[in-house]
Order: sequence, then structure tokens, then C-alpha cells
Amino acid sequence: MSDLDPAIADRLKRDPQGLVPAVVQQHDTGEVLMLGWMDDEALHRTLTSGRATYWSRSRQEYWVKGETSGNRQWVRSVRLDCDGDTVLVAVDQEGPACHTGTRTCFDGRDLPVTAPEPRSA
Amino acid sequence: MSDLDPAIADRLKRDPQGLVPAVVQQHDTGEVLMLGWMDDEALHRTLTSGRATYWSRSRQEYWVKGETSGNRQWVRSVRLDCDGDTVLVAVDQEGPACHTGTRTCFDGRDLPVTAPEPRSA
Repeated sequence: MSDLDPAIADRLKRDPQGLVPAVVQQHDTGEVLMLGWMDDEALHRTLTSGRATYWSRSRQEYWVKGETSGNRQWVRSVRLDCDGDTVLVAVDQEGPACHTGTRTCFDGRDLPVTAPEPRSA
Repeated sequence: MSDLDPAIADRLKRDPQGLVPAVVQQHDTGEVLMLGWMDDEALHRTLTSGRATYWSRSRQEYWVKGETSGNRQWVRSVRLDCDGDTVLVAVDQEGPACHTGTRTCFDGRDLPVTAPEPRSA
């Protein structure tokens, strides 16, 4: 069982594994740093400890971002989306967010967009 | 079967439903607009049509964002994350991204953060 506020738990729509995706954004620059997964307890810990906490699908355990690496995430705000099935966590990220050493997990990993010119600005 | 470039398909790590989450961000302001889901074909269409295309888990069909509402998303870039299990789509969003009429799906949906003061800037 989780200590998550029942009023929040009632609004969550979880996947079959009991998880919601958590989009993690640097609070001031707007960079999307990474995507993690949270169950009720990880969300509860994120909201109450000030440190972003996830559920590791590969290791099947909770992890506090930066606990091993030192690249901690200090929680600034947490928002739920309109459907209750995604959270957006604004953090202050120390060091690189990615375990590969890049600032974000998306840096240098562009896929080729071969579409016609987009709408001009 | 999908027409997705096999070199890209090889890098994708899909969930048991064959999907990856797609984080959608306004290309210039950095706002996180919404989170959608893509299978190989939705990603292929997003990369080649210039319009963000998702797989609807509730309706079990492809949808081109804005096709009904007019609130279209023009694709500027698509990036894969370090693990190959999330994509980040930078778009130019016309109008509100959320079906509720708010600019993003996260507007006005803050959860209470009750943690001690975060690290000062």
C-alpha cells in the first residue's frame, strides 16, 4: 500500500503495471531531461521528499534519482495531465540527467525528419 | 507491418502493447504540451508527413493531432532517448494542445508538493 493522498490516487489512471510516465523537465530552461515511471508510492515520495523518485521497471525497485551518481533532481513542481495518466515534474537537475553523461537523455539522438517544409513561423 | 526505417525500428524498445511514449514539446518556448503514444507506423508517419501522429489506446486507431479540432502539430524534430524507449517530438502547436481547451494538458493541474525547501538556486 502507498501513503499517497487518496484524493490524488483517485485521479490517477495507471497502466496495467500500475505505473504512469513521468516527464521530467528542467524548471527554468524548459529542457526535457528524461522520462521515468512512477507508481503511487514513488509519486508520494516525490511530492513529500523533494527528491524525484521513480519505479525502475528493469530492476523492480524504487530509485531516488542521483542517489548513486550524485546527479540529483530537486523537485520544484508536479502536475498531472487532463486524463490523469501522465505527470510532469519540474526539477532543478544537478549535473547530467542521463546515465550516459549527456545533459538530457535525448541529446544527440535526432531521428531524420523527411517531411515537407513545416508551416512557416 | 510498418514502413518505418528498419535502422530506426531496431533501436526502438516498445512496451508490451508495441508502443513508446511520445513527449510533445513546443519547439520555441519549451512548454511540454502533452504525452501521446506511438507504434512503429505512427512514428513513421510523424517522421515523413510533418504532422504529429499517434496511436490512440482508447480508440485503437491512428490519429493525426488536429485533424478534427484544427489544433495541428507541425513537426520540427524528433529525438529518441538513450534507451530507445521514449521519443521527444518538438512541434509548432496551433491553438491549444489539450482537448479541454488549455494550452497544455498540464495547465492548472498542480499537485501539492509538501517537501522541505528545495536546494536554493
